Order: sequence, then C-alpha cells, then structure tokens
Amino acid sequence: MKRLAMGGKKVWLEEAEDPRAEPGWAVVRTKAIPLCGSEKHAYYSEGENRWGGHEGTGVVEEIAEGSRLKVGDRVLISPQGGCEVCELCRGGNYIHCPDSYPGQSHSAELVKKREAILCILPDDVSFELGSMAGCALSPGFSSLERMGCGASDTVLVTGLGPVGLGAVTVGSYRGARVLAVEPVEFRRDLATDLGAEATFDPTTGDALEWVREQTGGRGVSLAVDCSGRAEAERLCIDAAAVLGKVCFCGENGGQIEVSPSSDFIRKGLTLLGTWHMNLLDVPKVFRMLQRRPEIEKLITHRFPFAQVQEAYDVFFSGQAGKVLLLP
Amino acid sequence: MKRLAMGGKKVWLEEAEDPRAEPGWAVVRTKAIPLCGSEKHAYYSEGENRWGGHEGTGVVEEIAEGSRLKVGDRVLISPQGGCEVCELCRGGNYIHCPDSYPGQSHSAELVKKREAILCILPDDVSFELGSMAGCALSPGFSSLERMGCGASDTVLVTGLGPVGLGAVTVGSYRGARVLAVEPVEFRRDLATDLGAEATFDPTTGDALEWVREQTGGRGVSLAVDCSGRAEAERLCIDAAAVLGKVCFCGENGGQIEVSPSSDFIRKGLTLLGTWHMNLLDVPKVFRMLQRRPEIEKLITHRFPFAQVQEAYDVFFSGQAGKVLLLP
Amino acid sequence: MKRLAMGGKKVWLEEAEDPRAEPGWAVVRTKAIPLCGSEKHAYYSEGENRWGGHEGTGVVEEIAEGSRLKVGDRVLISPQGGCEVCELCRGGNYIHCPDSYPGQSHSAELVKKREAILCILPDDVSFELGSMAGCALSPGFSSLERMGCGASDTVLVTGLGPVGLGAVTVGSYRGARVLAVEPVEFRRDLATDLGAEATFDPTTGDALEWVREQTGGRGVSLAVDCSGRAEAERLCIDAAAVLGKVCFCGENGGQIEVSPSSDFIRKGLTLLGTWHMNLLDVPKVFRMLQRRPEIEKLITHRFPFAQVQEAYDVFFSGQAGKVLLLP
Amino acid sequence: MKRLAMGGKKVWLEEAEDPRAEPGWAVVRTKAIPLCGSEKHAYYSEGENRWGGHEGTGVVEEIAEGSRLKVGDRVLISPQGGCEVCELCRGGNYIHCPDSYPGQSHSAELVKKREAILCILPDDVSFELGSMAGCALSPGFSSLERMGCGASDTVLVTGLGPVGLGAVTVGSYRGARVLAVEPVEFRRDLATDLGAEATFDPTTGDALEWVREQTGGRGVSLAVDCSGRAEAERLCIDAAAVLGKVCFCGENGGQIEVSPSSDFIRKGLTLLGTWHMNLLDVPKVFRMLQRRPEIEKLITHRFPFAQVQEAYDVFFSGQAGKVLLLP
Repeated sequence: MKRLAMGGKKVWLEEAEDPRAEPGWAVVRTKAIPLCGSEKHAYYSEGENRWGGHEGTGVVEEIAEGSRLKVGDRVLISPQGGCEVCELCRGGNYIHCPDSYPGQSHSAELVKKREAILCILPDDVSFELGSMAGCALSPGFSSLERMGCGASDTVLVTGLGPVGLGAVTVGSYRGARVLAVEPVEFRRDLATDLGAEATFDPTTGDALEWVREQTGGRGVSLAVDCSGRAEAERLCIDAAAVLGKVCFCGENGGQIEVSPSSDFIRKGLTLLGTWHMNLLDVPKVFRMLQRRPEIEKLITHRFPFAQVQEAYDVFFSGQAGKVLLLP
Repeated sequence: MKRLAMGGKKVWLEEAEDPRAEPGWAVVRTKAIPLCGSEKHAYYSEGENRWGGHEGTGVVEEIAEGSRLKVGDRVLISPQGGCEVCELCRGGNYIHCPDSYPGQSHSAELVKKREAILCILPDDVSFELGSMAGCALSPGFSSLERMGCGASDTVLVTGLGPVGLGAVTVGSYRGARVLAVEPVEFRRDLATDLGAEATFDPTTGDALEWVREQTGGRGVSLAVDCSGRAEAERLCIDAAAVLGKVCFCGENGGQIEVSPSSDFIRKGLTLLGTWHMNLLDVPKVFRMLQRRPEIEKLITHRFPFAQVQEAYDVFFSGQAGKVLLLP
Repeated sequence: MKRLAMGGKKVWLEEAEDPRAEPGWAVVRTKAIPLCGSEKHAYYSEGENRWGGHEGTGVVEEIAEGSRLKVGDRVLISPQGGCEVCELCRGGNYIHCPDSYPGQSHSAELVKKREAILCILPDDVSFELGSMAGCALSPGFSSLERMGCGASDTVLVTGLGPVGLGAVTVGSYRGARVLAVEPVEFRRDLATDLGAEATFDPTTGDALEWVREQTGGRGVSLAVDCSGRAEAERLCIDAAAVLGKVCFCGENGGQIEVSPSSDFIRKGLTLLGTWHMNLLDVPKVFRMLQRRPEIEKLITHRFPFAQVQEAYDVFFSGQAGKVLLLP
Repeated sequence: MKRLAMGGKKVWLEEAEDPRAEPGWAVVRTKAIPLCGSEKHAYYSEGENRWGGHEGTGVVEEIAEGSRLKVGDRVLISPQGGCEVCELCRGGNYIHCPDSYPGQSHSAELVKKREAILCILPDDVSFELGSMAGCALSPGFSSLERMGCGASDTVLVTGLGPVGLGAVTVGSYRGARVLAVEPVEFRRDLATDLGAEATFDPTTGDALEWVREQTGGRGVSLAVDCSGRAEAERLCIDAAAVLGKVCFCGENGGQIEVSPSSDFIRKGLTLLGTWHMNLLDVPKVFRMLQRRPEIEKLITHRFPFAQVQEAYDVFFSGQAGKVLLLP
C-alpha cells in the first residue's frame, strides 16, 4: 500500500507492506482523510515522520475470526486506541485511557484498527461528509454537548480554524445564536456560511466590547476557544455572562491566569476543556450529518494522494477550511 | 433595639431605632446569628462599621398589608436582596442580580428584610440548627449540588474553616467519601466528627501524594477548595481525576495559573465556583437538617449578645467551628 | 371596565367595577388576550360564567406601595396564583401549589394580579407575540424542556390544536425533526408553516406505520400528545423508540392502559405530563420569541372586544390557530 | 463440565462438553451464581430446560487470540449479549439491542461469553459480593440512577423479593430515606437490616395512608415497584408527591390503568421502567460494593452445586434473600 511520510516541510508517498486483519482488528481501505492542524509538528520537524494522520472514513477490507463487522462496512476511523476494559474505555472515553496508544497513522491506503474504535456510517452519509466527524466537528460537538448547548444559548467561538468552524457549525445546528471572532477574512466568511450570526475581526477593535454590544451588555451564555491563544481564552472568560460556561478546545500548553474570586465565585463561571469526542456522542454527530448535509461546506479542498504536497500547502496557508485527501 | 457595631479590633452593642414593616418588607426578631469569617474586614478596619452580619434565623415580628408571611413564622434570614423581577432573581440567584444590595446587617435584635428572601423553617428544625443554612452549609451545598455529588464520588475538601467543615458535612450527607486537608488539628478532628473519612495535615508531607494513596492513584472525582489559598486551589486541580470537577468556595482575589491543555483539554477537568446558595436549594438544605440533626456539631460555641466580644475572640482564634450569637 | 361573560353557547361584554392595586397586587390593562380551548366548558355550560380567560399580555396600570414593578411595565399575565412561600411556589411551580387559586379571569380590560406572577416582556417582543407565551407555547415548551429536546431528536406531535401547534413550533426551534399527526387539513398546513417536517392525516391510514416509515423503523425519540385522545396517547407510546420519552399535554380525564413490562421495563420508556409552564422557563420562552418572531404565524385571527362573539365562533370552528382578543 | 437443568419442579446436574474460547469470546469458570426469581418459569414448566441462569462472577479460564482480557481475570458475568456495533450496544444498553441473544445459561461450571460483556471485578470485591451486581442490585441501581436519587429524596419500595431488597440497599447507599411495603415479615426485617427506615405490612392496613403519614401528607419523591403487582404499581403512582417519579422494576405482563390528566398533567408525575442495568453503571455499582461490604447481608443462603435442589427449595420458599450456588 501507499502511505504518507513527512518532515522538513515536505510530505511524500512511499510504499509499505499491507497490514493484515487479526482477531479484534480489522483493516480499512481509506476513502477520505482530512488533514489536521496538529500534523504541523511532524511536517515542520526534521527527519521522516510516519505518524500524525488520525481522522477519516473508509470501507472494511478485511476482518478476522470473531469479528462483529463485515467486509464492506462503511466506517468512521477515530484516532488512537485504548485498553477496552477499563472504566474509561467502557464508557467511550478511551482517549483518556491510561493505556491509550496512537496506533498506525490513518494517512495511508489501508489502516489496521481495533474494531471497538470503528463506527458504522449511516448509508446516507458520504465518506467525505462522514470524515467531518473527526477533528472538524468532534471538539466542537463535545464542547457544546458537555455544556448542554441549546436554542436558548448565545455561543461565542474564538478562532476559526477547522475546529472553530466546526464549533460554529455545531452551535448553529443545535439552534444557538453563534458569534465568532477571528482575524482571517476567509475564515469569517466561511463561518457566516456555516451559520454564524455575526463575526468580528479582533484586529479592528475591542472584541469584548463587540460581544457586549451583541448581547445587550449581558455576555454570552457559552464560549468555546478554538485558537489556543491566551488572549482569546481570556476573552471567552470575560465575555461569558454570569453563570456562563467556557470550554477550551484549542491546545495551549502554556499557562493562563484566572481569578478564583472574580471569575468563579462571584461570577459563577464554569470552565472546562474537551479534546476528542466520547464514542457515545458519535451517533448524535452522525444524525447531525444526516440532517445537515450542507456541513460539507466545511470541506474547501479535495486532493488525490498524488497531489499530497499541494494539499498540505493549501491547508497550512490558512486560506482553507477542511482539506481532504482522497486515496 | 440593640445592634452590633465593630471596628479597631473591637465589637460592641449600641441602641438603634426599631425597624418597621412596610409592604414587601417584614421585620424579624433574630434568634440565632452565626459569625462569619468575612466579618474580619470590618472588625479589623478603622472606624465604626455597622454592616457585615448576614446569616441567621428568627421569628417574624411584624408584617405589612399584602404579606404572605404571618407574624410568628419561623424563618431563615439569607443575605442581601435583589430586584425581584429580573431573570436571576426570579430564578433564585438574586445574589448575582445586577441590582443586588447588602441591606441591613443581621447582627441586631430586629432585621428588616424583603419577604422574598425569607424562607419558612420546618417546625422540627431549631433556630440554632436552622442558622447553619447560611455561610456554614450553603457554599458547600451549592458546590456539591452543582457538581452533582453523590454516593459514587470521592470528594477532597481543602481548608476546614466553617465553610470547609460545611462542605465535609454536605459531602458526607450526600453519601460521598470525603477526604480533607487542613493544618489545624482542632478542625481536622471536627471534620472527622462531621463525616470525613480521612484527614491530612499538609505541614507534615505532600498532600497530593496523600490523595493519590487514598484513591489508588486515580485522584478524586470532586474537589472543593474552601481555603482561598493558591496552593490549595492548585492541589484541588492536581488531585482531581481525569474528567473530575473542582469548585472554588474560598475567596481569593488574586490570580492562579491554569493550563488550558494539561488541566482542561487533556485531563477533561471542569472548574467552577460558588458564592452563596440559590434559593431553590433551600428546601434541600432544610431536608438535610431534618435528617441529620447531628449537624449541630458544627456549632462549637454560643454566646448571648452581652458577651459579643468574647464571641468574636473565640471565633477569630481558629479554635472554633461555627460561633452563634443568641440575642 | 368591560369584561367578558359567557354561557349557553354565547359570549358577551358587560360592565364591571375597575379593580384596584393593593400591596403585593398590581392592576394590568390587557393588550392581547388569546382564547383557549379550555374555555369551551364555560361557553357551553348553562348560566353565566365569568371565569376562564387565563392568558395574555398588558401594561401595568396601577401599583401599590412596596411594588417592584413600575406603572408602564409591559408584562406577561400567567394564569392562577399560589401561596408564594411554599417550596413549589418558590421554585416557580406555583401552578401545583396546594393553595393555588384561579384568580380573576383575564378576559377583561383590567386584571388584578399578584406581582409574583407578572413577568416583564422584553422590549422587542410585541404584546401579540408575547401573548403566545401562555397556553399556546407553554405546554409544548415545558414538555420538550423536561424531556431535554434538542437537535438530535425526532419528535412526534399528535393533535394540532393551538397546544399541538405550539409544540411543533418549539420542537422546530430547538432544532429537532418534527412529525405531526392531525386529521384537520388547515391545522396540518399550519404545522408545516411552523416547522413540521412531515404531517399525516390519521383518517387515511395507519399512523404508527407512517411514523415507522419516517424513522427507518426505529420510532421517535420523543412524543407529545396534545389531543387528549386515548388512541393518540397510545400512538405516542407505541411510536416511541426504545428508551424514548412521551409527554401528555392534552387533557384526558379518563383512563388509558399501559403495560409495565412491555412499555416500561422492556422498552425503557419514560412517560410524563405537563400542564402549564414553570416560571423559571419564562426567560427561555421570551428568548424564543425574540429569535423567532415568525412564531406570530400561530395567530390566525384578531378581533376587537366588540366582536367577541365572532372571535369565539371562529375559534371553536377548528379552522383557526390561536385567536386574539384586542381589548 | 457440570451444568444445571430444570423442569417439572425439579432441578439437577448433568454433564456437558466444556465450552472453548474463540476470538471475541472467553470461557469463565463460575465462582458464585445467584438464583433469580425469573427462573421460576423454567423450573415449573414441563420438559427439560437448560436456560435461565444469567448472573454471577467467575475467573477467566481461557481466552483466544486478540483478547484484551487475561486468564485469571476476576469478572462479573452479565446476562445476554448484543451485536456490539449498534448505537444501543456501543452505549452500554446491549440488553435492548434488536439483535440481543440469551446466550448460554450461567448455571454451569464454565460459561462462554463475549468479552464485551465481561467486566473486571475490583480486587477487593469478593466473588460472592460481586455477584450481587446482577439481578439483585442492577434493577434497583438503574431505577434510582435514572431517577437521579440522592440524599434529598424519600423513596418508596414496593415488593421485597431480591430486586426490592436491592432497591432498598441502593436507596440507602445513595443517602435517601427509604420506606418499604411488603407482606412477608422475613423480608421486611431484612429490608430494615439493609437500610429501610420504616416498613409496612399491607395486609394490616392502608399502605397509601401509611406513606402519607410517614411523609407529612406530601408523598414520596421517588417510588420503585419491585412486585409486578397492579395494586402496588398503583400505590407507587398514588403515593408519589407532585412532580415525583415512579419506576417499574417488577415484571407485570398485564395492563394497568393510568390517568393522563390526573396522574401526569395535573400531578406532573414521571413514570419509567428499567430492566437490567446499562454497562456504564457497572463501575458505580462496583464502587458501592467496595464502600458497603455489608451488602453481603442480601445473601441469606449459599449451597454447593451438589445441593442444588435444596438451594431452589429455599429460594422459592420466600424466606430468603439472595441464594448463591457455589460451583
């Protein structure tokens, strides 16, 4: 099979041995593989890296004895794997399993994966649309699900990379009023297409002031940071209304300052974070894709495997939503 | 009537005019007035202060036309007041009302209070026990209610002043396993009496290590900081298990550092804060007092009004739980 | 003032003394008074009846000392009244208060009402639109709120009188897929306008079969009966999916049969009922009106007081949505 | 291996071929097998029946390639099996899977079971105690978990067979006040030992009256029927307070009458049912067993396989709690 390798600001295809199914594991032929911003590290690092791809959809190519899947099943390929028997794994939170492992990169024609991770796509969800149930929609969905987002809410989304665009999409689908803050015009326009009611360029004024104007001074009931930048995270906290909730989705390995008394005790804020999505949420995300096929607007570019370098160039330009590889 | 005044490290009684009921307002004759650590500021400040007392129970002494209360009703006197018509007030969160006001200090023989704030005590809850439904139990109850604390939880409480002792009491009542961290021996012993399963003196070793030992390395599902100290707040965050929840109850007007990626995204933590209690929780707190009259152990000292200086001396010594004035 | 009286299949205006404000009570000048199907009983009964009107909006005309409202406040007038101090009243469920009382009919130019029942309308919600926050929208909102209805749900609504049309409206607003069953074509068409995705005339075939076809055999996650008819209630139970929820909104004083094992234990169904709406939901309903002004389509007819007989004739014809009296 | 067969009011041991592990399936050597009232049907029916046993704990004896379990793992053996890939199975509700299957009876020395059904027992929970996490505790736990039972609740349990005794145990563990109704004295006494605050013999008076006396006229916030008898189910509905919740756990294949208006709309009742337990609840049940080892009182008799007839005689006498077979 062909698979991707990357490093030194380049990406290329190489041949590798086909993986084989074995009990508990199936082999999936990939059909749509979205690129994820988290691959930047491997791309820009020295050396040759063969990990990183962790989203996608495909068709079960091979199963082993005892399988509950069938050859030909259309499936979502979620990232990583876990021990399958601990409380976290059994509850669908295998990403947090102390024995979780990255597994093979999904950026290949064939991916070998534990069956427990493979979820059967509904017939009426295409491979391309279905692949949005990875890093595009899952952090936003998980955030808004855990915060109980519904039609009564006003949601602020900061940072409109693919994760932020996904949060806008999910907020709109759940009936909430969505406000979004992002400096890149292309992304703000895409957010509007995906359901944001108003957007703001933070390089042109005071974003906190803007949120207050949009909400009659009250602030938003929910906020999701997808930028991973301290000032946007702080904006979320400050723009949240009394008793509001804030969720961090954008990776920020640094520290930010919060005030126990002002932010939490007096204001009654709730602050949380989500990484990937609990497997229990997958059916709800699939239902969203069935009811809102226009979510495909999140996908702005598609490339065959042969044009993989072009795909990464476009994706890392910032002038893109989700970019798909079609092996 | 007699009322308290304080300042310059002294407290004394003085005469004041009796308040009178008017439409919407009742006058309550106080029966049990707990002291609160938040009065320290007034006590130690210069000048004469006549605010600060904000807990207690009493008997309705006078009502005006249109009242839904009756003279003789036994009531809980909660702090402050709000506009009564905004969304926050109507939802019981009047403490967060943008038009909230402190109102008259409760440290007096008679208190004039909006009827909307006065909750009728069950017949079988004494004035003394009922007065624990103020700052003693309400922050802990609100914290554990908002975090959904139940019998499956292990709860860490840091800081065993009256608020922390209240959190221990509530956690035990809700069936959780309670661990507590506090340097003062008197308070640790009282926490044990009130239902803590294990306590730790943080001056004798590594509190985080101790929590891990107590929880098989896993950490606690819930943590409540009642100390308002940064290192204890950080302990709560670090000692929480994956997908755990942490609530701040102890005032800390400073800043603490948190990591969006490590604390929230990767660990899945939820962080919140509570000040006072939503009025909707009052019936649940009353039910707790009915079912657990031994909560009276929280009250370690009682003084008549005439011994008010002695009451404050004992209370501020740290060798006390809740101290009551009995006017 | 003028007020309505009815009986013997007629309705007429008569003069009555103006009510006066007193402490705790305000007088409201009515602006929009919706008719409600529950008035049928008074209309068709013998004698002269002066009760029944229990919805509407208006302007505060007079207040008494101690009031937290102001003359000129625009308000929603909800039905009944309660004791204001019991746990149910304090929690917003005053309708269930053991001491609840009907109070004066709202079908008059002036209504005297306890202030605790009057909720201030947002400035951008008209009197007419605001009046939909009574029996039109409140049973449906309460049902879907208590069942946690969101975008992942498919909701069946049976019976498309004003209550059922309201449930369709709320379900659509909350992002759910809405299916509706009703024999009258006018009402089915109105439901489609208000957001139903598909409707069915149960006189033309098997409604259960139709729901199964619409849901891939799985059934609906939520169902709301607004007809009060046993066969529709049974349809809701049978059409609900495994672990689904069913809510009764349509009054049916008779009995229906349910099977503990088949309906509840094996299928995992949850069955509930809602009457009016908890006051705590009012802000959410107001937010719905602000975000969806097209809900005004629920109002199909408007009449001045002088044409009150015509108003009731049209309303009871079944060829109407909500009918308003404009005093 | 030896296994049980029953029929014609007799039970006996017979030899059968040892089952063998295969991919996805493990073989468990049973250690504690509780008897369940649902086996009565097989016991009293004609012919020879080899199904029915569906609870228990044991040790993994054999695994196949690809297993995530290890030989020697101590496990809970839950009933049935499902397809493992549908939404219900992936969410832990495999019991409701449309493709669920009974599988081999657990009443044997060796049981072959899908790995997905086997949950690893905590080290400090014995096989005997762990076996209570089947039909003894799971219906009650599931009922009270779904109804959100906590320390603020008063719970009525009707019918004190093993399921009802389990519900008493769980209610007490969760901090609720538990009332129980049952005619057999032995069972009432056992309920008292397991945490019921008060019990009532319904043959000696009016049980509804008794509940009202116990609750100040208000009724219970939660009720669980474990008798499967129409009059007890109706008692639960009538004894529930306004806005209360009722759960059916006792199989009753017949019909009962409920009133949409009186029981649901005006009273605001919620009615549900639970069969077995969602797999996601298993860790919470294990935690309960760790914290309350005295739950072992639920087990009143233990028999080796050789005394199987005596075991069933005792169990069906009604003078027993849970009866264990120890193979």
